[in-house]
Amino acid sequence: MSTTRWQELAKVKRDQLQAAIPKEWIVSPRSESNVLRVPRECGVLTSTELEITEESDVSVLLRNVAGKKWTSVEVTRAFCKRAAIAHQMTNCLTDAFFDAALTRAAELDEHLQRNGKVVGPLHGLPVSLKDQYKVKGLGTSMGYASWIGDIAEDDAAMVQILRESGAILYVRTNVPQTLMWTETHNNVYGRTVNPHNRALTPGGSSGGEGALIAMHGSVLGLGTDVGGSSRVPAHFCGVYGFKPSYHRLPFFGAVNSLDGQESIATAVGPMSTSMSGLQILTKTVLESKPWHKDPQTIRMPWNNDAYALAEHGGGKGLCFGIMWTDGTLSPHPPVVRALEITKKAVEAAGHKVIEWTPYKHAELANITRAIWAADGGADYQAALATSGEPLINSMKLDADPNEVVAHRKPRDPLTAYDLWQLHKQKRQLRKEYMDLWLATASQTGTGRPIDALICPAAPYAAVPHGQTRSAVYTMVWNALDYPALVLPVTEVDPSVDIVKTQERLFGPQDESLYKMYDPEIFKGAPVGVQLVTQSQEEEALLAMGQIVDDSLKNGGSVVTGPRL
Amino acid sequence: MSTTRWQELAKVKRDQLQAAIPKEWIVSPRSESNVLRVPRECGVLTSTELEITEESDVSVLLRNVAGKKWTSVEVTRAFCKRAAIAHQMTNCLTDAFFDAALTRAAELDEHLQRNGKVVGPLHGLPVSLKDQYKVKGLGTSMGYASWIGDIAEDDAAMVQILRESGAILYVRTNVPQTLMWTETHNNVYGRTVNPHNRALTPGGSSGGEGALIAMHGSVLGLGTDVGGSSRVPAHFCGVYGFKPSYHRLPFFGAVNSLDGQESIATAVGPMSTSMSGLQILTKTVLESKPWHKDPQTIRMPWNNDAYALAEHGGGKGLCFGIMWTDGTLSPHPPVVRALEITKKAVEAAGHKVIEWTPYKHAELANITRAIWAADGGADYQAALATSGEPLINSMKLDADPNEVVAHRKPRDPLTAYDLWQLHKQKRQLRKEYMDLWLATASQTGTGRPIDALICPAAPYAAVPHGQTRSAVYTMVWNALDYPALVLPVTEVDPSVDIVKTQERLFGPQDESLYKMYDPEIFKGAPVGVQLVTQSQEEEALLAMGQIVDDSLKNGGSVVTGPRL
Repeated sequence: MSTTRWQELAKVKRDQLQAAIPKEWIVSPRSESNVLRVPRECGVLTSTELEITEESDVSVLLRNVAGKKWTSVEVTRAFCKRAAIAHQMTNCLTDAFFDAALTRAAELDEHLQRNGKVVGPLHGLPVSLKDQYKVKGLGTSMGYASWIGDIAEDDAAMVQILRESGAILYVRTNVPQTLMWTETHNNVYGRTVNPHNRALTPGGSSGGEGALIAMHGSVLGLGTDVGGSSRVPAHFCGVYGFKPSYHRLPFFGAVNSLDGQESIATAVGPMSTSMSGLQILTKTVLESKPWHKDPQTIRMPWNNDAYALAEHGGGKGLCFGIMWTDGTLSPHPPVVRALEITKKAVEAAGHKVIEWTPYKHAELANITRAIWAADGGADYQAALATSGEPLINSMKLDADPNEVVAHRKPRDPLTAYDLWQLHKQKRQLRKEYMDLWLATASQTGTGRPIDALICPAAPYAAVPHGQTRSAVYTMVWNALDYPALVLPVTEVDPSVDIVKTQERLFGPQDESLYKMYDPEIFKGAPVGVQLVTQSQEEEALLAMGQIVDDSLKNGGSVVTGPRL
Repeated sequence: MSTTRWQELAKVKRDQLQAAIPKEWIVSPRSESNVLRVPRECGVLTSTELEITEESDVSVLLRNVAGKKWTSVEVTRAFCKRAAIAHQMTNCLTDAFFDAALTRAAELDEHLQRNGKVVGPLHGLPVSLKDQYKVKGLGTSMGYASWIGDIAEDDAAMVQILRESGAILYVRTNVPQTLMWTETHNNVYGRTVNPHNRALTPGGSSGGEGALIAMHGSVLGLGTDVGGSSRVPAHFCGVYGFKPSYHRLPFFGAVNSLDGQESIATAVGPMSTSMSGLQILTKTVLESKPWHKDPQTIRMPWNNDAYALAEHGGGKGLCFGIMWTDGTLSPHPPVVRALEITKKAVEAAGHKVIEWTPYKHAELANITRAIWAADGGADYQAALATSGEPLINSMKLDADPNEVVAHRKPRDPLTAYDLWQLHKQKRQLRKEYMDLWLATASQTGTGRPIDALICPAAPYAAVPHGQTRSAVYTMVWNALDYPALVLPVTEVDPSVDIVKTQERLFGPQDESLYKMYDPEIFKGAPVGVQLVTQSQEEEALLAMGQIVDDSLKNGGSVVTGPRL
């Protein structure tokens, strides 16, 4: 088979990426599944660089740079090295611009030295970017061969804010073709794997971020999320992932799939090794007047009172709802155990947990899928047409090119009028869901409705490549426009997470999915939980995420940082 | 021609309305064009009732009820009478529920008497509703015969808030069939006329509100606005009209045309005899946590700092932009004069005014029209199909049933994908417009961009029935999602507003429109100006509207209240 033009272009991109990694950072290939220890064992990083990159708490990293314990150049070089190693182990990057990063780091160090103060709240911190955020002077192919070579004249709004805040840009990360998968594989950069177990997917579409952050090649990155794309990789990779409400953080200047689809707006999806990373990023952006960079961003600055949980009893004696299943797909045993751990932890910390009955999640998911597929694939086809590259219809390793997995079957295009009818249904479901939420005030004992909802991030932990289904546990919150975050809780432990028989299953799909669980396949995969609040309660969610995270850590059950 | 079923239903509705008006409030038909004096001359209202209804300032009315100068029953009966007379003169109402209003007023009086305090910030104030806001137990036909008899099980969110705030509901007001006209005529209730000159239209789609408020049959009403529907009637009728940003005030539970169309969200459009009416209504709603009643409403409470113009120099030494023409339709001489009066007034009050060059208004208008017509008329057709009533294609008095006016020609339906492409264009134009606005910081001398923009509300004052065009001067702000309000400035005066020749016209449409101006036809028609700010600056806009209004009044040029 002769090499076609798009394959040549893709190879050039991959070669460029390879060439950006200095020879002395190249490590020998590994055969093991779990590659989390490689950065520590490979000898590329100095002990200081290991110390820097293994500091999970973003606030500590920033403090140590601002306080001159570490220079920004030191920190940046450490993360460049570690990202390079992470990439060699998981294929997580699409771009590496280490030289530019180190140059900027030196400028920041000089600034700090000369002026005695930081340029902004992210001074000297390397921040990774999903391959959707335009960077001036670079192309953003987003996994499409057709898009190779389209050089950006401007930074995306988020990139501008990062720069102005003192952050250092050094890598961009891999995505699935079309973005509309919770796995990560495309024709240009290939497949990203999960560093906990390379036979498993890191999730998607921000799967490059998930793998990179799991390996501590980054402590803070920008994913995106229109259905779970920051939260599923966070759950699969054992990191923190956040989806704010529509238009709370500025998306302008990011390329996208289904661009122009506004029924369910794509959110900037921060991901991190810590709650502090999500908090600092969100606060920094919301204090930067992002509505001056993106006309769709809501004029709603960071609210300290909301973060202090002024409308949630100051964070004392909270009442959480807990949803064990969404009524469509039964969570696997380790996911249920993560919920149990979380429930016990927050109860032990003095909070209350009451049952939440899922309400029309299947309907919400159906509307969401219909909206995403409203173009009948025209958006994908337009993106593929220029280069002639094939559409990826299955994420399986050995996929037959003609195989189309069930949740990716093409649909007939909708008219604008059809779409309007879906909007009416969605609005009605949002009203009903909100009314139910508010009605819990009669059961919480706090006088308030539930403060947040604890639920699975997915019915499974990271699955083998090609085995994910549509992301019903995350996408309903996109449909409802509720902010949601995922935090790590535990990992699959075959000694406790044994195969169980489920008395009630929700049909054949649920049955086949539930039967997929095999402790030996999922062994060691991270498991998180999802925390959800009402629309535009970002600050409160981030504060309550900290409370849940602290409760879990004090209970000793959470595993954070790389498993070293 | 035999009477069809829909005609029978429509007659029943009209008869019900007529029957709701007590015989002693019936006045003899009038032949004059200007009917503003009829309430004072007809003898139905007592001198106290005239005093009550001629108080333009909503804050004074509220104070006089709260302070027991007037009972709520007195106030309510006064406005019921005056609304009944306004209706007889202009055909502005669709529903009158005077008995329920008086019953509620008596309850409120009793509450105040017993508890010594008001039930809420709108205690005892009658508020009129456009025939889109559902009222429990009533049908809302919105001018469609097909919709007659569909009884609401719940109040619209805004109606709930009004009730909880102590407002009294007493009438609903007329709309054009399909709502998508800036005139007011439908097959059920017929045509509403302008009380300043009944040969002219009151505008639309909130034309019933415009006519009612111009006659002081209401001092505060809820219109709606997706392209100018609160602002055009305000301009045509000499009252105040306001369009907030998308989803700032709760629209849930209101019926709509093109329902489900979310690309340009319909706004609740308050209308009043005073700036204080717009301010009090908006503040009341935003302090009521409206996001608990409508899941699409932004969680953004009333902001006192913004109202104090904290980001606009505290309101001292403001710099306004002024736009004399949008580059598509040349304003008639009285509209230009209203701008000149406003410019001089704010300059005399110590503010600065700089020129604003319109940017791609034609493109914005084209995108807006394409979005509205994206269904190819399917929404209208569905609404008409049940009853078989005809589509109204022209608002002319003597319209040939087969005539379709230029801006109402049917369009081919769009696909969802087509709509997404329009969203991309719209987003880009919003970005460019915002950047231009922000860039004025280099010209204002305040260090800030222009604080607000002064521009025409329409290229004309109220025109003869059937002569309006599409509302380009108002719809661009819906497309950009900038809040905008219209306030009255002057009226057409043939002695100064003489016919002029325009050196440069923007094509044949502009030419024909410009030639429409005839001082004798437009004589006495009110003329307003429009004031515009950036997205979600409602509080600042309402504060600056007050500054402009005060400047105009102190300059002696504004005419407010009924011309008695």
